Amino acid sequence: MKKVAIIMGSDSDLPVLEKTMNTLKEFGVPYETHVYSAHRTPDEAIAFAKSAKENGFGVIIGAAGMAAHLAGVIAGNTVLPVIGLPCKSPCFDGMDALLSTVMMPSGIPVATVAVNGGVNAGLLAIEMLAISDEELSKKLLAKRLADKETVLSKIKAVEEKYN
Amino acid sequence: MKKVAIIMGSDSDLPVLEKTMNTLKEFGVPYETHVYSAHRTPDEAIAFAKSAKENGFGVIIGAAGMAAHLAGVIAGNTVLPVIGLPCKSPCFDGMDALLSTVMMPSGIPVATVAVNGGVNAGLLAIEMLAISDEELSKKLLAKRLADKETVLSKIKAVEEKYN
Amino acid sequence: MKKVAIIMGSDSDLPVLEKTMNTLKEFGVPYETHVYSAHRTPDEAIAFAKSAKENGFGVIIGAAGMAAHLAGVIAGNTVLPVIGLPCKSPCFDGMDALLSTVMMPSGIPVATVAVNGGVNAGLLAIEMLAISDEELSKKLLAKRLADKETVLSKIKAVEEKYN
Amino acid sequence: MKKVAIIMGSDSDLPVLEKTMNTLKEFGVPYETHVYSAHRTPDEAIAFAKSAKENGFGVIIGAAGMAAHLAGVIAGNTVLPVIGLPCKSPCFDGMDALLSTVMMPSGIPVATVAVNGGVNAGLLAIEMLAISDEELSKKLLAKRLADKETVLSKIKAVEEKYN
Amino acid sequence: MKKVAIIMGSDSDLPVLEKTMNTLKEFGVPYETHVYSAHRTPDEAIAFAKSAKENGFGVIIGAAGMAAHLAGVIAGNTVLPVIGLPCKSPCFDGMDALLSTVMMPSGIPVATVAVNGGVNAGLLAIEMLAISDEELSKKLLAKRLADKETVLSKIKAVEEKYN
Amino acid sequence: MKKVAIIMGSDSDLPVLEKTMNTLKEFGVPYETHVYSAHRTPDEAIAFAKSAKENGFGVIIGAAGMAAHLAGVIAGNTVLPVIGLPCKSPCFDGMDALLSTVMMPSGIPVATVAVNGGVNAGLLAIEMLAISDEELSKKLLAKRLADKETVLSKIKAVEEKYN
Amino acid sequence: MKKVAIIMGSDSDLPVLEKTMNTLKEFGVPYETHVYSAHRTPDEAIAFAKSAKENGFGVIIGAAGMAAHLAGVIAGNTVLPVIGLPCKSPCFDGMDALLSTVMMPSGIPVATVAVNGGVNAGLLAIEMLAISDEELSKKLLAKRLADKETVLSKIKAVEEKYN
Amino acid sequence: MKKVAIIMGSDSDLPVLEKTMNTLKEFGVPYETHVYSAHRTPDEAIAFAKSAKENGFGVIIGAAGMAAHLAGVIAGNTVLPVIGLPCKSPCFDGMDALLSTVMMPSGIPVATVAVNGGVNAGLLAIEMLAISDEELSKKLLAKRLADKETVLSKIKAVEEKYN
Repeated sequence: MKKVAIIMGSDSDLPVLEKTMNTLKEFGVPYETHVYSAHRTPDEAIAFAKSAKENGFGVIIGAAGMAAHLAGVIAGNTVLPVIGLPCKSPCFDGMDALLSTVMMPSGIPVATVAVNGGVNAGLLAIEMLAISDEELSKKLLAKRLADKETVLSKIKAVEEKYN
Repeated sequence: MKKVAIIMGSDSDLPVLEKTMNTLKEFGVPYETHVYSAHRTPDEAIAFAKSAKENGFGVIIGAAGMAAHLAGVIAGNTVLPVIGLPCKSPCFDGMDALLSTVMMPSGIPVATVAVNGGVNAGLLAIEMLAISDEELSKKLLAKRLADKETVLSKIKAVEEKYN
Repeated sequence: MKKVAIIMGSDSDLPVLEKTMNTLKEFGVPYETHVYSAHRTPDEAIAFAKSAKENGFGVIIGAAGMAAHLAGVIAGNTVLPVIGLPCKSPCFDGMDALLSTVMMPSGIPVATVAVNGGVNAGLLAIEMLAISDEELSKKLLAKRLADKETVLSKIKAVEEKYN
Repeated sequence: MKKVAIIMGSDSDLPVLEKTMNTLKEFGVPYETHVYSAHRTPDEAIAFAKSAKENGFGVIIGAAGMAAHLAGVIAGNTVLPVIGLPCKSPCFDGMDALLSTVMMPSGIPVATVAVNGGVNAGLLAIEMLAISDEELSKKLLAKRLADKETVLSKIKAVEEKYN
Repeated sequence: MKKVAIIMGSDSDLPVLEKTMNTLKEFGVPYETHVYSAHRTPDEAIAFAKSAKENGFGVIIGAAGMAAHLAGVIAGNTVLPVIGLPCKSPCFDGMDALLSTVMMPSGIPVATVAVNGGVNAGLLAIEMLAISDEELSKKLLAKRLADKETVLSKIKAVEEKYN
Repeated sequence: MKKVAIIMGSDSDLPVLEKTMNTLKEFGVPYETHVYSAHRTPDEAIAFAKSAKENGFGVIIGAAGMAAHLAGVIAGNTVLPVIGLPCKSPCFDGMDALLSTVMMPSGIPVATVAVNGGVNAGLLAIEMLAISDEELSKKLLAKRLADKETVLSKIKAVEEKYN
Repeated sequence: MKKVAIIMGSDSDLPVLEKTMNTLKEFGVPYETHVYSAHRTPDEAIAFAKSAKENGFGVIIGAAGMAAHLAGVIAGNTVLPVIGLPCKSPCFDGMDALLSTVMMPSGIPVATVAVNGGVNAGLLAIEMLAISDEELSKKLLAKRLADKETVLSKIKAVEEKYN
Repeated sequence: MKKVAIIMGSDSDLPVLEKTMNTLKEFGVPYETHVYSAHRTPDEAIAFAKSAKENGFGVIIGAAGMAAHLAGVIAGNTVLPVIGLPCKSPCFDGMDALLSTVMMPSGIPVATVAVNGGVNAGLLAIEMLAISDEELSKKLLAKRLADKETVLSKIKAVEEKYN
């Protein structure tokens, strides 16, 4: 199976990305985690992006805060789909990271998820891989149903308590 | 090849989505275009989402403006990857559509592109399909290089004029 | 008397909605509380909306945070008035939920109250029911006067302390 | 049938409110239109609010732009449900009017619709009246189905053109 | 000397307004403090505004949070200058109160100070009264110079520590 | 009578300030108009502020766009009340000018009016002067009543047309 | 004299950058203009940045709109000072470009000027070069005085017309 | 070597500016720290700016919060490059300070860094001085490489832990 690359701009984003990793683990999807800053280690970030496809990756997740250029820079150096995960920073609740990630110019898309949306970044990567992987697709469906069961049991608990 | 579904909330979004269609055409990727409103034709929208996979779709693009619920509602009814395309509306420059599309709760991701990013919605869909389609991947690379050539020739024109 | 339905997207919104329930209780207005997610249990949410009128409901309150699609999705499946209660989430102070709830397209209104406005969601539901219920209307007036008395006694306390 | 009051802060808001009036006319719901400014004719605005119920009104719509106090001031002087319609003004795309209208303190709700949402203000008023008016409720359902037919025929047109 | 009226929408705004009171006390300017809500006690708020001039007031300060209508409603019922003091509330950092207070329509100005600017609301009232009160004007100048001395001594402390 | 100073940061703000001048003229309040930039002619701006009181001014209006420092800089050099008039500029609809004008630190208030609120800046200046000028106060009241008459006749026109 | 590099992300930014070029020309400061996209021609952008110092550049100006990564990417590949010029784009009035440009992480500063501030980007570059170039510094001072004269003559015109 | 001036509007900004000082110390760049408020000690601020060049300064850093006029006022009184450092304040996460600092009118640039970007303000000043100081430029390069090493070792730690 193709691997998912998780690239973060700074190790301060780890708490969000651990959720991504756990999600991938849960589905048995192989991944690699790296810290590459678009500004402090641009060569490494770009080299990784350029060789990601031949190194067996199918999707790349780029997570960064503030002026979050990482996902965009990676996307400019690969034709693999790149998921942008804007991280909340001390100012503006992550609006700076969101706009820096999602408002990409025509030609170089970044598939952006919610601010601090670590789980969803992982799920989106899995959904992409599952397009051509029926077994993975079934796992997604199973997970969706399991989630639904959890919600339904919560529903019952709430309904019993309040109605 | 799996098809791309283009779903828009209103036919007023057509100018943006024609760019998406042209992009898909350019790559020879089959697509279908539908108008399903999350609010005015919810049954149709959901029925489409639920059967999209078995009907041969690999990716769904959901485009809407204002309180843009379409992509999220579709995503809640399929495990196919869903691309959210927020459309600019008369107020707030599309910020309402952007936040309504991207800030999805944990469990149901929407791969959001820039406001009015019709071309990028198409390219992102192609990138997703190309994960397992080497020929499509090569086309993306070729397109990227062609784009680069266009930029380089613009560079030359600017450099000759201004330097 | 017709019932009020309180639907929340997640049980994490309960603290806000307990205020809604207490308000309804105070007026003796019957209500039912359910957890239905527009994304994780869409079928249940829609089925509830479609049958709400025949099941004796007069008003539906939909509460959700982030990309808050719940009230809009419910409103698209009933002609009962739907009150949207945007809930504050970790980012953007609830601005994402507010815009997702209030900026509905023409044809499907959602009666939106303030972010985290649990009491007001309840009062608004009561005001709607009171249009045709003189006794309820009198209770609202009495409550308004009682509130005023409370404010007036606070006024006195402040005036005595500071003037 | 109870009447709907349409109160606007300035006659510059008329283009938006004509849509409200047309909507009410379409459903045969009686209405009265007045211009009362919360700031320039406060006595008239408040006197209207205080006597609205006894004058046969069931719902009041308050429309204003900028620091839009009208709906809130009316709501403070009646227990009828008050619909707030924020109007777009030269600055901030109506965000000032939206926040001034929707962020009401606990105790005095305003049922806020989208910026410039003239049609939805009218529909919401009708939905409120229809809680206890089965015939009106049926008209709403019929209108919803007719709207759906319109959308479905648009869908067909788009599908035929683009697929 | 004419008095300053301090009107707050809720006693939860007292911590900010105590700064206003202390500032007025410091200058020996007489003041009265009242709690009048534009929504919960509109009659009292308006009656106060209408009679403020004849009751010996020269300036009115109106402080409120969220959809802060208080200062505007007072301004619509007096020709005394009205100072608007937007108070920070749980959402939006007081942006809702700021826009609700400052974006007044043509004809009814509100002299708005910074969010939670309790001291400045008091100083601005004093500056207004000092237009025709030479002694008060001298006190303002003396205070300004004293403030400057405080800053200058802080400057020295910082310069000695860091240079 | 004390004069009103109208200071603008750039002559591009003249259309807004002509409304201010017309308002002052209408009330027979003497004024002087100057263009002083806080950045391009700081010495002149500050010299004006420092001598404004002794030169017979009672109030200063400072109007500027973008990073609107003019009113604040003037306020730092006089104890006269300073009215800040934020002007709309090509970006951000005047939000930059509003925040730059109103968010003054403790000790130096600026009485801020709405973005492009030329009439209200003039009226506020007159209200300040009228604190100690009974005749001017009567003119304000007369104007307020005349405005009300205008609104009332508009009300009639609208009511006759639409009811 | 060291040269100034003007790098723009797209030739659509030329109208803003022609002001930058004219400013540099006016001061006789040599410059070179290039179009390098952080996303479409990343290699060229980075190669330029890496060799800029040895190629005789003293300052680099990076101009881009939307998710404006250009200045940040250049700054990550040189220790020359980099000026960021956010360009206004169809959505959000350039707020996306401003936040993407200015909110750089610790270690890699970008000297950001106002949205569409083409003249100021040029002047700031000249000011940087003038730190060690007394003649250039004198030219800046002369320009400042000439600007002031222009403002002063405008002042006179306005004062004569309006006072 | 030319000195760097660090001017802050209030000593409450010291925690941010100590990072600036530490950065300058680390590079052996001489600096002076002063507290001058644009509003409370305008004369001192302006006098400093006017004489900064002749007093041996090469760059000035101006740090302030809220309506942050300091950097702009300094920039209007010198042709030295002025770095603006917006400081986070209790409201709006520093957006008020950012817009007040960066949106300077044509003719008077302020080189703005991120909100609370104390380290970057220092680094930017050093980069400016290094344009004509080869040794300083080498130190910047060395620092950049050392930073990179730190990042690379963090990368290794993360990669070892998570891969």
